[in-house]
Amino acid sequence: MNPFRRGTTSPPPRRKKARSMATLCRPAVSVPEYVITMEETLELARSRHADHPQLPLALRLIENTGVRTRHIVQPIEETLKHPGFEERNNLYEAEAKARVPAVVQRALDDAELLTTDIDVIIYVSCTGFMMPSLTAWLINAMDFDSDTRQIPIAQLGCAAGGAAINRAHDFCRAYPDGNVLIVACEFCSLCYQPTDLGVGSLLSNGLFGDGIAAAVVRGKGGTGVKLERNGSYLIPKTEEWIAYDVRATGFHFLLDKRVPTTMEPLAPALQELARQHGWNASDLDFYIIHAGGPRILDDLSKFLRVPPEAFRFSRATLTEYGNIASAVVLDALRRLFEAGGADHTARGLLAGFGPGITAEMALGRWHVSKNGKNGT
Amino acid sequence: MNPFRRGTTSPPPRRKKARSMATLCRPAVSVPEYVITMEETLELARSRHADHPQLPLALRLIENTGVRTRHIVQPIEETLKHPGFEERNNLYEAEAKARVPAVVQRALDDAELLTTDIDVIIYVSCTGFMMPSLTAWLINAMDFDSDTRQIPIAQLGCAAGGAAINRAHDFCRAYPDGNVLIVACEFCSLCYQPTDLGVGSLLSNGLFGDGIAAAVVRGKGGTGVKLERNGSYLIPKTEEWIAYDVRATGFHFLLDKRVPTTMEPLAPALQELARQHGWNASDLDFYIIHAGGPRILDDLSKFLRVPPEAFRFSRATLTEYGNIASAVVLDALRRLFEAGGADHTARGLLAGFGPGITAEMALGRWHVSKNGKNGT
Repeated sequence: MNPFRRGTTSPPPRRKKARSMATLCRPAVSVPEYVITMEETLELARSRHADHPQLPLALRLIENTGVRTRHIVQPIEETLKHPGFEERNNLYEAEAKARVPAVVQRALDDAELLTTDIDVIIYVSCTGFMMPSLTAWLINAMDFDSDTRQIPIAQLGCAAGGAAINRAHDFCRAYPDGNVLIVACEFCSLCYQPTDLGVGSLLSNGLFGDGIAAAVVRGKGGTGVKLERNGSYLIPKTEEWIAYDVRATGFHFLLDKRVPTTMEPLAPALQELARQHGWNASDLDFYIIHAGGPRILDDLSKFLRVPPEAFRFSRATLTEYGNIASAVVLDALRRLFEAGGADHTARGLLAGFGPGITAEMALGRWHVSKNGKNGT
Repeated sequence: MNPFRRGTTSPPPRRKKARSMATLCRPAVSVPEYVITMEETLELARSRHADHPQLPLALRLIENTGVRTRHIVQPIEETLKHPGFEERNNLYEAEAKARVPAVVQRALDDAELLTTDIDVIIYVSCTGFMMPSLTAWLINAMDFDSDTRQIPIAQLGCAAGGAAINRAHDFCRAYPDGNVLIVACEFCSLCYQPTDLGVGSLLSNGLFGDGIAAAVVRGKGGTGVKLERNGSYLIPKTEEWIAYDVRATGFHFLLDKRVPTTMEPLAPALQELARQHGWNASDLDFYIIHAGGPRILDDLSKFLRVPPEAFRFSRATLTEYGNIASAVVLDALRRLFEAGGADHTARGLLAGFGPGITAEMALGRWHVSKNGKNGT
C-alpha cells in the first residue's frame, strides 16, 4: 500500500503528531575563488562562436538567465580547455578533497554537533565520479565514526539536493535520535564540453556554476526547518529531457528546450503534497525552490500563484552563483537564515528539480529551538 | 547522539518490540545467456598473456576462485574488444532496459505486489552510468506511480546490495506501510579493460560475472527475512584498496592485494552488531555473505568461528556465477529460498562488502507469513 497515493477525492485526515522532529539546520556554503561575470560569458560566446547561426538566440538566452556572476574552481582559461575525462575527474577529486571538509565543519558547528554525532553522510554530486565515493575519504579524513552510513547519490542531478534533504528526513523518522550530514559538491565547470554546440549547450555554458554546500538534519533539537512531509514526483515520459550523454570525453549535458515548460505539470504535484498535509501550496510563508533558470522560477510563481518575491532567495542564488545544481536549494536556504529566518512555526516548501524529470519536495515549519540555538 | 555507538562496556538493553515488520522477500535473479567456463578463462589468460612474468601466479589465483562458470551479456569475443567507453555505456543501458523489467516483475510477483504498491525504487549498479538513473525509465516503462521515490546508488560497488537492503529497512521503519523495490544490475564484463595487466586485474578478469537481481522489502506482510537491525562499518584508511580509476576508456577496477585480509577487522564489526542485538554472530541459523572471492568466505568463516558450510549459498553463487558485485547477496538469499528457507524465527546475518572498504550488515529473522505466502 502506498501511503502517498494521489487521487483520493476526500481530503485525507491530518497527520497525527509527527514522531520525528527532524530539523534541517543552517547550511554552510562555499563557492570557489575564480569569478566569471555575465559580460565575460557573453564576450566568450561571441568570440568563440562568431559563426554560429544561432549565436543571437544563445546570447539572448544567456542574458535572460540573469546570472551576473559565477564562481569556478580554476581560471576561465583553464576551464575552457579539455584535458580529458581522466584529468578532469582527478581535478574533481582533488578540489573536492581540498574544499569540502571546511564546509562540512561549518555545517557541523552551526548545528552544534561533532563528526562523531553523525549517523549518515548523504553525499550528492553529479559533476565527477569516484568509487569509493568521497564519503569514505571524509570519514577517514575528518574522523567520523567507522559505523557512519554512506549514501552517495550521483544520478539525480539538480534534484539531488532535495533528495538528500528528504532521505535525511526519512532516516530521522526511522531513528528519531539520528543525525544526518548532507553534502552537495558540484563543479559544473568541469563538465564544460567545448565541442557541444547546440543552443542548449551554449545556454548551459552561461548558466551553471560551481559550489559546495553542507547542512545537518538533526533528529532532536536544532533551529531551522522542521521537516514534516516529503514526496517525489516524476513527470511521465520526460526522462530524456535532462540527461548525460556519457562519452570518452566525460559527461555531456543534454538540455531539451521543453524543460522550462515543466513547471505547469509540477505545480499540481506541489499542490497535492501540500493538500495531503492540510496546507495550501499557494499560501505558505517561505519557499526554497531550485533555481534551474529564470523561467523555472517565473513559471512556478505563476502556476503556484505566489508573488515572484516569494522566490527571492532562489533568485539571489541564481544571480550571484548561477545554477549550482544540487547545491542551489541549500544555498537558497542559507540566504533565508541570513535574512533572519522566519517566524517560529512559519510554514514552508522546499523543492529540487532535476533529471527524470524528478521533483523532490518537502514541507516543513520554521522551528526556533527554545534552549539556545540548537538545544533540545 | 549516535544510537549505534560502539565501545560501551555493559551490554545494551534488548530492543523493545520493533515498530517495523520490514520483510525482505524472495529475490528474483537473472544471468545472461553467454557462458564462460573456468577452463576457457584459464586458456584465454594463457594465450593473451603468454609473456606476462606473473602469469603462473595469475592462473593459480584464478583457479583458486573456484568460479566454474560465469554469465556475460555478449559473446566472449565481443567482451574482449573495447569499443570505447561511450559504446560500452550505451550497451549497458540497452542491456539493462532489455533485461531488468522481467526480473523486477518476478520480484513483484513473488512479493504479491503491483508496481503501484511500491513507494521507493533503490537501484544499485556500479558497472554503467546513466543520468537520469534507470529508475526514471523503469517508472515510465513499467507504470510505477509518478510519486515513487528514486534512490540510485552507483558508488558503493559490491557493498551496494547490502546497502540497498539496509536503506529499504530504514525506509520501512520510517513508513511502516511502505514497500521498497531493490534492483541490482551489474554487467561487470562491460568493465573489462584489456590494457590493465596487473595481477589484480588478471584475477578480476577471472572472477567477476554479470547478473541482475531484484527483491521487494514489504513493510507489512511477506515471507522472507524480517529485518531487525542494520549497520555499516568502514575499515579505517582502506579507501584506496578497492577503487575505480575513471578514465576515457571507462572505469578501471583497482584491487589491492591486501583486500583478502579484511575479514579479520570486519568480523569484530559483525560481532558487535550482533551483540547490540543480543545475538552472537558465531551462532546464527543462516548467513548470506558477499562472495567477493574464496578467501573472503574462508577467512570470515574462520574469524567468525562458523563452519564453512554456513556460507554454502554464497559459495554456490561464486561457483556458478562468479562475483556478480552488488547482486551476490540477493542471489545467495534466493538460493536459501530455493533450499526451502529457514525455520520460522530462525536468526540470520546478511552482509555486503565493497569499496570504502565498507561493510553493510543486517540482522533478521526468517519469517513465514501466517496468511498465505505474503499475507499480513
